Amino acid sequence: MSFNTFGRVFRFSTWGESHGPAIGAVVDGCPPGLALGEADIQPFLDARRPGTSRFTTQRREPDEVRILSGVFEGRTTGTPISLMIENVDQRSKDYSDVAKAYRPGHADYAYDAKYGFRDYRGGGRSSARETASRVAAGAVARKVIPEVTITAWVEAVGGDAIDPARFDAAEIGRNPFFCPDAEAAVRWGRLVDEARKAGSSLGAIVAAEATGVPPGWGAPLYAKLDSELAAAIMSINAVKGVEIGDGFAAARLTGEQNADPMRPGDGGPTFLANHAGGIAGGISTGQPIRLRCAFKPTSSILKPVETIDRDGAAAEIMTKGRHDPCVGIRGVPVVEAMLALVLADQKLLHRAQCG
Amino acid sequence: MSFNTFGRVFRFSTWGESHGPAIGAVVDGCPPGLALGEADIQPFLDARRPGTSRFTTQRREPDEVRILSGVFEGRTTGTPISLMIENVDQRSKDYSDVAKAYRPGHADYAYDAKYGFRDYRGGGRSSARETASRVAAGAVARKVIPEVTITAWVEAVGGDAIDPARFDAAEIGRNPFFCPDAEAAVRWGRLVDEARKAGSSLGAIVAAEATGVPPGWGAPLYAKLDSELAAAIMSINAVKGVEIGDGFAAARLTGEQNADPMRPGDGGPTFLANHAGGIAGGISTGQPIRLRCAFKPTSSILKPVETIDRDGAAAEIMTKGRHDPCVGIRGVPVVEAMLALVLADQKLLHRAQCG
Amino acid sequence: MSFNTFGRVFRFSTWGESHGPAIGAVVDGCPPGLALGEADIQPFLDARRPGTSRFTTQRREPDEVRILSGVFEGRTTGTPISLMIENVDQRSKDYSDVAKAYRPGHADYAYDAKYGFRDYRGGGRSSARETASRVAAGAVARKVIPEVTITAWVEAVGGDAIDPARFDAAEIGRNPFFCPDAEAAVRWGRLVDEARKAGSSLGAIVAAEATGVPPGWGAPLYAKLDSELAAAIMSINAVKGVEIGDGFAAARLTGEQNADPMRPGDGGPTFLANHAGGIAGGISTGQPIRLRCAFKPTSSILKPVETIDRDGAAAEIMTKGRHDPCVGIRGVPVVEAMLALVLADQKLLHRAQCG
Amino acid sequence: MSFNTFGRVFRFSTWGESHGPAIGAVVDGCPPGLALGEADIQPFLDARRPGTSRFTTQRREPDEVRILSGVFEGRTTGTPISLMIENVDQRSKDYSDVAKAYRPGHADYAYDAKYGFRDYRGGGRSSARETASRVAAGAVARKVIPEVTITAWVEAVGGDAIDPARFDAAEIGRNPFFCPDAEAAVRWGRLVDEARKAGSSLGAIVAAEATGVPPGWGAPLYAKLDSELAAAIMSINAVKGVEIGDGFAAARLTGEQNADPMRPGDGGPTFLANHAGGIAGGISTGQPIRLRCAFKPTSSILKPVETIDRDGAAAEIMTKGRHDPCVGIRGVPVVEAMLALVLADQKLLHRAQCG
Repeated sequence: MSFNTFGRVFRFSTWGESHGPAIGAVVDGCPPGLALGEADIQPFLDARRPGTSRFTTQRREPDEVRILSGVFEGRTTGTPISLMIENVDQRSKDYSDVAKAYRPGHADYAYDAKYGFRDYRGGGRSSARETASRVAAGAVARKVIPEVTITAWVEAVGGDAIDPARFDAAEIGRNPFFCPDAEAAVRWGRLVDEARKAGSSLGAIVAAEATGVPPGWGAPLYAKLDSELAAAIMSINAVKGVEIGDGFAAARLTGEQNADPMRPGDGGPTFLANHAGGIAGGISTGQPIRLRCAFKPTSSILKPVETIDRDGAAAEIMTKGRHDPCVGIRGVPVVEAMLALVLADQKLLHRAQCG
Repeated sequence: MSFNTFGRVFRFSTWGESHGPAIGAVVDGCPPGLALGEADIQPFLDARRPGTSRFTTQRREPDEVRILSGVFEGRTTGTPISLMIENVDQRSKDYSDVAKAYRPGHADYAYDAKYGFRDYRGGGRSSARETASRVAAGAVARKVIPEVTITAWVEAVGGDAIDPARFDAAEIGRNPFFCPDAEAAVRWGRLVDEARKAGSSLGAIVAAEATGVPPGWGAPLYAKLDSELAAAIMSINAVKGVEIGDGFAAARLTGEQNADPMRPGDGGPTFLANHAGGIAGGISTGQPIRLRCAFKPTSSILKPVETIDRDGAAAEIMTKGRHDPCVGIRGVPVVEAMLALVLADQKLLHRAQCG
Repeated sequence: MSFNTFGRVFRFSTWGESHGPAIGAVVDGCPPGLALGEADIQPFLDARRPGTSRFTTQRREPDEVRILSGVFEGRTTGTPISLMIENVDQRSKDYSDVAKAYRPGHADYAYDAKYGFRDYRGGGRSSARETASRVAAGAVARKVIPEVTITAWVEAVGGDAIDPARFDAAEIGRNPFFCPDAEAAVRWGRLVDEARKAGSSLGAIVAAEATGVPPGWGAPLYAKLDSELAAAIMSINAVKGVEIGDGFAAARLTGEQNADPMRPGDGGPTFLANHAGGIAGGISTGQPIRLRCAFKPTSSILKPVETIDRDGAAAEIMTKGRHDPCVGIRGVPVVEAMLALVLADQKLLHRAQCG
Repeated sequence: MSFNTFGRVFRFSTWGESHGPAIGAVVDGCPPGLALGEADIQPFLDARRPGTSRFTTQRREPDEVRILSGVFEGRTTGTPISLMIENVDQRSKDYSDVAKAYRPGHADYAYDAKYGFRDYRGGGRSSARETASRVAAGAVARKVIPEVTITAWVEAVGGDAIDPARFDAAEIGRNPFFCPDAEAAVRWGRLVDEARKAGSSLGAIVAAEATGVPPGWGAPLYAKLDSELAAAIMSINAVKGVEIGDGFAAARLTGEQNADPMRPGDGGPTFLANHAGGIAGGISTGQPIRLRCAFKPTSSILKPVETIDRDGAAAEIMTKGRHDPCVGIRGVPVVEAMLALVLADQKLLHRAQCG
């Protein structure tokens, strides 16, 4: 099956392929009366847009979003919001290599195995280009949760991590790596350049935080806030791992080390730690929501890899085209969008049951 | 909201609290004609059952399952399968401590913040006791995917990992830790004993593998196989992280290191590596599905922790009761069950769309 | 597929067969803090209970409901509410006739065609016995919508309709037919007796009204209030038609005859008519919700009918057993329950989106 | 809430308002490999298209559909199919009347009550223009069920019914009323003309039949084939009643009159009657699926009706604009589309569970 819809009551569906005429999203269940225009969405798309530095793919897409429905006189009407982004730079290139043989690490073989054939142009539906639709939908979601502030950043590139002591949120927007550590950003510039020139690619760790989430959001047991976030983040292309709070590190702690003790505070407890990442029993505690995820290195590399062709015969493939040497970097606005989409949904779900 | 149902077409819903009269699951969408009886389910419950060694909680529950519907003359009918497990050992203890103050790391505060009040007896709905229902449902799921073999094991306890060179699947069933490394099992015995005696607790890493999954299962884009697995695993009590394939380690690799090259093989490609954990583009590749997850240390410890009470005043709490010193251990049959449940659902979804 | 769950955010799932050990429902998404006990549910089950007069089946079921989860200290906790009703009077009779040949009008042939075999005892899952689970779930739903009053009644039996001029709501509970017209009730007594003695059966029209629904409930476009009601009512055994407001009669009116003009009123418009049945554009208008539905005559009759057996050979069947001569009558509490279940769901959905 | 998606595994979502730039549908879950192009969809849109005779609204919309995704080299890929229809003839007219006061029978008041405000241009989202999206999606659904033939027609206009003895399917396409009785079509021409000239409107009955549905489709209990059809048909603008098979007439029959006896036939039973409309226990029997529905008269009439304005003050409104004097007529292609959409979904659901 194909399930291109995410969410329970605040839902979005995406459509479109890398090299079709357009891509888009339909956002359904949005509360009425929210101020919304293209200008509220475009900045988020611009942050994800390709071709803005030499560290990302050179495909040039303006990624201009159009709102086709669901907004009247500048406000959401409560009906579906249709968002469309035209594909402009589907360079007419020769796809015969990709059509014939499977690129390891890509969805090529799996799509063929599932569907019998595939749109091989630029990865078709499995292209990370689809994430632009998520970012657009995420911008709508943010309108639903004005009380929440979401920030994501890159924490490591190719194994080279930031120094937590140097973390400066203001830096994130100042370099092409969404890097909160100015020194690490300089190092990453060299790393990514090297990888790009070598026709190689690098993995990355992306971290995110949402502050302002009140206690009580989350839908136990099978739409727990952490479970929904894990699904949302793991659905992003190239993500192979998700952690909430301390994540895997928590497995090395003892119960007393991992406790998040509470003291009386203003309008709720003051927590003395946040190992849990702001979620207990699948429900927000009022602390910042914290998660991390791992992006594998871009599968498209300029080095030949052994593979098979559609007929099962041995082949070798190298992916020329235009690609991000480190897909994790442009994953940052996508992670933020998915976080916003989950939180908007959970806010409305909480309101449904608990008034 | 409360979402106690998981799955798209093969779905299960669970109900019940730690100290209510019973817990259970309703499995819906199961194909007709499968041989099924209590005897097919009981062994999986027995593997998860508490009180079988000194390394787990001393609550003594026979966990006897009854099939109340959906089976006729030993075969599934295609109608809902209702499974019930009576709670037998809800020891009548004094819950006034837990009723009044919030246990850090538990769902206590979050449930109160969400619902206004809570069933505080043994954690109520947020108790890991609920996972018995999942294990029962998972046993039904296994009937749907006879072609698949699922194995999970503990990979590390309290930071002490197995030696991969000593991995022996046959060992998993021979020790109380689901440990595939006989030497590690001995060490863990000491570790867990120490933690138990100290009133402390330990985290754990659980790994799982599913072999026999054909290529093509998975529902892009928002019910991708990896996304569904992440949601399923992250919904288990105490899990804080999920990895598919190499997971976080992939973020330190280059594209060429992370490639899973293919060669011609019998009835499909032979893969030369499995960094991806058997999933590409959200669809199974035919390789073994591999995942890992992190269990935090049990939050219930015998050491006093700072907290607040229901009125917001400062308090201190230590959780006496009967608890697993390392919840990750009994998480093994639960991880297996969730894997079975996701794969059964994805098998049917694939059949729906692709015939 | 099997879809035994109804509802979007206030959801219930039912399970169980006519002759299994028990039947039941799991209600999920119920708001927390509502007073609920078995005593709130039992009266509705008693109204639907078989064997209370000679006009219904002689199967004697106490239909005693047990709440197995989701309620603590007399209040709903926001977690799943498991309701169970034991089957007591599954008379051990000889089902070899029904096992071998298909009863026309029943689900026998269709279930075999779909599932390959079936639980033939008393109709198995397709038995109207399942509606007891709905009635139990409906009693919970009523707690969610205390502002709403729901009343259903029988409007016609075997083509003999009530006289609208004699409509007296107080009569509904005074006769075994849920008949608001005392004279019609007398006639129906004779009609049903005759049918019963002749081994025949009768159809019926059931009408229902919900007052107190505020304007604004409904989820356009594909979960419109009228669409959800139609689905809910049509899912009841033996129902073959559903009308909202004037229904089929509206097709004979002109636009001006069918208009529901409005005048200024207290806190909203005063409507001068209610052809629409309280729903416009799929959303409640604040007028009473009105619907009608048609129950076919019970398919189980004591007269021989031509049929085929499982091997496709010609056969003849007459259904001895214990049956309602007019299933529509005991449909009344079921129609009320479905109305309550849809309205509870729509109330919560409205709250989710519109606050 | 807003629920603009219909279906379980073959799903479609629609978006768009009467006077926005475009409307559209996203079809998800479509099997791969089906031949599909705009030319497969356009004829169905043309049948529903306004402005083709004087008996329908004079709004002139070419209703040209574009496929924006999900099709590659003329075949469906298994990914979402995005369909878009531009609105061309959104005549710039003065909507101040409609903006200020509520048109009785329309969604105006209910939308305002729900959402706080509304897109009043041409009815916004509640306009029957949305049904073009359903018709487009329905054309895709037909590709999924080539074994099924679907035919709908008008059975009565303004209370004037066809003569069943004159039923001739070939006539349906020969007159502007989808009327299978040539004489009735002539009468209806006069009736509709009169209504149009008088500024009035008429209701209609639409009937539909699907042949070729094999036994076994249907998803008991809450997605029964008849329940899903009722929901689908009742979601169409202006529909107020739905019947399956004999529908309300069945309530006047006895059990023996209503029986559909079976005799041995080729590859299944030969049924001697079809009172049930091809569905038993919510599952198809292999007989033709038969349903009827009632369309109320168009609410937009040129006669003044009492109403209130947005401030609650008394007002009078008459709807000038361009409207269908009998909306039921153009409902025919929409009923067919909904039937196709439900059957496609049920086919895939059946395949999921029963292989």
